[in-house]
Amino acid sequence: MDASLQPFFHPAGIAVLGASHDPVKLGFGVARNLTQSGYTGAIHLVNPRGGALMGRTVFADLADVPDPVDLAVVVVPAAAVPGALRACGARGIHAAIIASGGFREVGEAGAALEQECAQIARELGIRLVGPNCIGLLDTHLPLDTTFLAPPPPTAGDVAFVSHSGAICAAVIDWASGQGFGLSRLVSLGNQTDVCETDVLAPVASDVHTRVLTLYLEGVREGRRFIEQASLVSRDKPIVALKVGRFAAGQRAVASHTGALAGQEAAYNAAFQRAGVIRAETNEEMFDWARALAWCPLPQRREIAILTNAGGPGVVAADAVEALGLPLAAFSDTTLARMRAVLPAAASVHNPVDMLASAGPHEYGECLRALLDDERVGAVMVIMPPPPTHSAESVCEALVPIIRASSKPVVFALMGENLIRRASDVLRAARIPDYRFPERAASALATLVRRAAFVSAPAPVPARRDDVRPAEARAVLDAAADGFLGQDAVARVLGAYGIDLPRIALATTAEDAVTVAAQLGFPVALKVASPDIPHKSDVGGVLLGLGDADTVRAGFATVQANARRAHPTARLDGVHVQRMLPEGQEVIVGAVQDPQFGALVMFGAGGTEVEGVKDVAFALAPLPHAEADAMIDGSWAGRKLRGFRNVPPADRNAAMEVVLRLGQLVADHPDIAEVEINPLRVRPAGEGAVAVDVRLRVSRETR
Amino acid sequence: MDASLQPFFHPAGIAVLGASHDPVKLGFGVARNLTQSGYTGAIHLVNPRGGALMGRTVFADLADVPDPVDLAVVVVPAAAVPGALRACGARGIHAAIIASGGFREVGEAGAALEQECAQIARELGIRLVGPNCIGLLDTHLPLDTTFLAPPPPTAGDVAFVSHSGAICAAVIDWASGQGFGLSRLVSLGNQTDVCETDVLAPVASDVHTRVLTLYLEGVREGRRFIEQASLVSRDKPIVALKVGRFAAGQRAVASHTGALAGQEAAYNAAFQRAGVIRAETNEEMFDWARALAWCPLPQRREIAILTNAGGPGVVAADAVEALGLPLAAFSDTTLARMRAVLPAAASVHNPVDMLASAGPHEYGECLRALLDDERVGAVMVIMPPPPTHSAESVCEALVPIIRASSKPVVFALMGENLIRRASDVLRAARIPDYRFPERAASALATLVRRAAFVSAPAPVPARRDDVRPAEARAVLDAAADGFLGQDAVARVLGAYGIDLPRIALATTAEDAVTVAAQLGFPVALKVASPDIPHKSDVGGVLLGLGDADTVRAGFATVQANARRAHPTARLDGVHVQRMLPEGQEVIVGAVQDPQFGALVMFGAGGTEVEGVKDVAFALAPLPHAEADAMIDGSWAGRKLRGFRNVPPADRNAAMEVVLRLGQLVADHPDIAEVEINPLRVRPAGEGAVAVDVRLRVSRETR
Repeated sequence: MDASLQPFFHPAGIAVLGASHDPVKLGFGVARNLTQSGYTGAIHLVNPRGGALMGRTVFADLADVPDPVDLAVVVVPAAAVPGALRACGARGIHAAIIASGGFREVGEAGAALEQECAQIARELGIRLVGPNCIGLLDTHLPLDTTFLAPPPPTAGDVAFVSHSGAICAAVIDWASGQGFGLSRLVSLGNQTDVCETDVLAPVASDVHTRVLTLYLEGVREGRRFIEQASLVSRDKPIVALKVGRFAAGQRAVASHTGALAGQEAAYNAAFQRAGVIRAETNEEMFDWARALAWCPLPQRREIAILTNAGGPGVVAADAVEALGLPLAAFSDTTLARMRAVLPAAASVHNPVDMLASAGPHEYGECLRALLDDERVGAVMVIMPPPPTHSAESVCEALVPIIRASSKPVVFALMGENLIRRASDVLRAARIPDYRFPERAASALATLVRRAAFVSAPAPVPARRDDVRPAEARAVLDAAADGFLGQDAVARVLGAYGIDLPRIALATTAEDAVTVAAQLGFPVALKVASPDIPHKSDVGGVLLGLGDADTVRAGFATVQANARRAHPTARLDGVHVQRMLPEGQEVIVGAVQDPQFGALVMFGAGGTEVEGVKDVAFALAPLPHAEADAMIDGSWAGRKLRGFRNVPPADRNAAMEVVLRLGQLVADHPDIAEVEINPLRVRPAGEGAVAVDVRLRVSRETR
Repeated sequence: MDASLQPFFHPAGIAVLGASHDPVKLGFGVARNLTQSGYTGAIHLVNPRGGALMGRTVFADLADVPDPVDLAVVVVPAAAVPGALRACGARGIHAAIIASGGFREVGEAGAALEQECAQIARELGIRLVGPNCIGLLDTHLPLDTTFLAPPPPTAGDVAFVSHSGAICAAVIDWASGQGFGLSRLVSLGNQTDVCETDVLAPVASDVHTRVLTLYLEGVREGRRFIEQASLVSRDKPIVALKVGRFAAGQRAVASHTGALAGQEAAYNAAFQRAGVIRAETNEEMFDWARALAWCPLPQRREIAILTNAGGPGVVAADAVEALGLPLAAFSDTTLARMRAVLPAAASVHNPVDMLASAGPHEYGECLRALLDDERVGAVMVIMPPPPTHSAESVCEALVPIIRASSKPVVFALMGENLIRRASDVLRAARIPDYRFPERAASALATLVRRAAFVSAPAPVPARRDDVRPAEARAVLDAAADGFLGQDAVARVLGAYGIDLPRIALATTAEDAVTVAAQLGFPVALKVASPDIPHKSDVGGVLLGLGDADTVRAGFATVQANARRAHPTARLDGVHVQRMLPEGQEVIVGAVQDPQFGALVMFGAGGTEVEGVKDVAFALAPLPHAEADAMIDGSWAGRKLRGFRNVPPADRNAAMEVVLRLGQLVADHPDIAEVEINPLRVRPAGEGAVAVDVRLRVSRETR
């Protein structure tokens, strides 16, 4: 952990600047919560009016506060915050939580005030959390610097880091009804200094925290977030809800890749790389967090479902299969053990339907048999109110069996009044319960996903060392911003081992005929222009020209078509290229994402790629496993393995292009966009050809 | 309503056969619930042992029960049920709920017993609900024939019809915690007589029922379900959870359409036609049901979000936009009205962030302004615990404003303890509250969807009257089961106004040359064989043959390729066809779904259709609006309107083929599968050509 952040998480003494007697003021709430939190360090209340509060003397001046004190909670009005920070510096306090609002969130004047505070803090070496936040909570230390109305949060093992204070307040209250507690909570506010990335390691270092949840409206430094989250996620799961999906403005882009590579594609690729599990809703995030915090990880994917009624079993099986998980097939031993305790009419196959008469004995023996079966990875126990037993009596019988097992068990405890005590029993034993099988299945799927993640090696980008970065660099340095000419493109990609087909520029029709004869018929003609990005869209491409006459006529045609579509474009002539052998055509592209850097796309190419949207993304440079998964992430990629009458293509060659193109754009951030469309992937063993490539240089993205 | 079902929903007197003194027996539960339900008709308890129960005399014999009695609840052991039904017949009772289990669900002997009961009931004119069910509930009549443990369900306006008794039990209990009540509940059990379709109209006829929810594991008669559900859904919304998605076995199919047209595609098409809203989870179904039961329908799609904190507003905006709904832009008047009551730092644009200080006044005035704005269709009010006001004080202020408006308002009331009383306030006023904005947004989207449904005219299948069914019928009657020859296919489709290109069969190479010369070069050759479904997969198709020599050689090639791939196939020669003009290529197919009948598919064709899966389905015959929506349901269909350099195609011609092919398969159920792949859709105004068609006849599907 960054030592300068230590006072936020393990303060020796805390001063509350702006502690107030007025119960409607935040300064009262902070003083109340801190003194009542059980915090065992020194607590110093500060207010120019002095007096006493919460049975403590209020210091009129921070300078008078005795040692120890290493953290300030600032709840004075916004205009007084710069002065408060100077006072902190003078008193030797180098960490402050600014709870006060009235800064960037209220407009320009507030933003200027926030800038001033940040400047003062930098000068005096003070780390800041906030402003405009609700501060920090640690239920185990314990510590509570918030001003929230009671009840305080229940102690637990789920940490929550949030860009929204209101969501903190809601989650603290809501969690108590969901039966899970919080370990640490950090409300980040305007993040004028400390941001989400900074607190990942400190929060994860807490022994009581078993899982981190993040409410994110963005991240400040993309690559550093990935780096820090990757470190944490090997050890403790991170579940994130990232909102603001539709907020981002569109950037100006000239490639299909650029048009499709929105902010969301980049976040998904970043979370994938960092091992962060992305939730779609708040409830999903905490549903998953509870399971991750409380359950052992499954050693295999097969799920067993144990129920006392058919309908919920069908619901569960549906949900499990919809999430891509297999239902376990049981061993003969397991089947026999269950038959021995169940009525003849029960179904011992998955989902196991014990019938409505099932009580603690039947549930217990069957669950034991399922957990003993090596073909079972995890179990969902379903319990609508059992008609002839209390749900809590069943749960009490099951807790020791679950505790003794190394496999995860989650419950669908269906109802309200009739299952409330059963729910209490499970929660006390840290066994996750959900109201319906669909949510229980979703939790199991997350456990399976996490198990796969921790059993896979940490991703290491595959770097090819037969590349010549300096050669590419020289071409890029010599280029103006904008699209590179075809020769320059060929040199840049060639330096990274991606070969373009032999191609020659012809400036006249006769020139084109001569060049075509040299290359060999049939040939393709493409209009040569740095100003026309989608050449086939404007009739600028002719294919399969078989003799001199058609090449001569074709030259005139593509020039005329291009001129008609782009009257002011620079036309350099026509590129002549020998027609290429057949293959499957895909697109491989890359852009610089403003937040996360080089982002690679793979999928179905052609001119309709933006309509078809059969593409997948990953961050560059790519680990082998991610390139592999990205190729399988589109139908066009899966088809490389062959499909019916489509023969298998040279998937390895396509993979190599993906890795090398990723390495190229990661090495050279001034490549704003590059797109191979199509990459023609020939039959296995015969390689892949970058038929058409466009590359745009921009100093802005460097 | 079917008069024979009247006694289930409005019984004059009820006899409980198997009423028991033993509290662990179902017969005790039924007697307890019925007598305690407040049912005002006659209640007769029957048990051979006689005596008294619940303060009533128990009749030893059903024959002794006095009038009125028109409904029996049977809870005797399975083996005694046939006798009980005969006793009902003798007593003149023509409606019975068999709650007892031990029938089809326990195996063959039980199935035989169930058959016997069904036979007796048919002979005696007795309608049956069950067996193996928990019976009926009506909270308003009131009436309770179940044996469920108390507490009984809260009265409300959501009806629930269920194939699972356990889910009934769970939902009754769970609903009490969710703040909504049930009107009628029907547990259908094994459905030996009365099924889900039978009860739709009777349940919907209840004045207290404002929305129907269905838990379905299937439907018994597809077309009748659609018919009945369509009648109900014009008047009252139906939300269905259909499970068993993965249970259906695969049928043997020979077409792409058949391979892709699974049970789920058919159910989705059926629900679409019937106006049934399909939920994916139990919680979603009841989230939506509450909103549909309680809220007026929005007159427009634009959503306003009103919040006291930024984070939840972003979450809400994300969720609303992800569901395809637009955020409202407010009028100047609205903006001014909100500015007048809010602090300067508040944001009056959507989402409206009033800041944490907002209380009853701010919430009230802003909500009033939003509801008055004609650009706003519906409002989501978000409330994490307001720091300086109680949530209930805010809600109390808002209830009259919402009650006075004709626009829907839903709440995201975030928390647990701090919002519980506020939740009670809203629920008492029948205003839906959800814990997080995501679920509130989902409820709003359902209201918008329902509003669109009720404002659209009832779907009427578009039937073309220039078709010649008898001509098609004659060809089909003359055909053996299996694939039809090309001539017969041309006649069948021709009779429905779908023209195939001129095509001729050539049995020798010279014959092919002669025919090609007649049709005009260039031509295509296709192997003619009833045994080879995917001709291009085996090299059985050659395109663009420009002269006699290539046709001659081509004949030998396709014959040899076909022979190599299918050594035992019957080869009739080669079909010769003039090469067709260019166009966009799509697939139009149809199959007979065993449950719902003729099902039409439209989408991206070619040989990879099963991999690409860019297709949509609808039931035939199709209303215009559904054909339109189906075409727009795939990228290939949307592309018919044109995309970048792809010119618009003759979408009307494609639509006409869809409607006519649908009419054909609906008229002739022995057309098991028919597939036009590709249908070449030429530029606007130039029509569409069914390039390749396969049609399989099967008497099984007639």
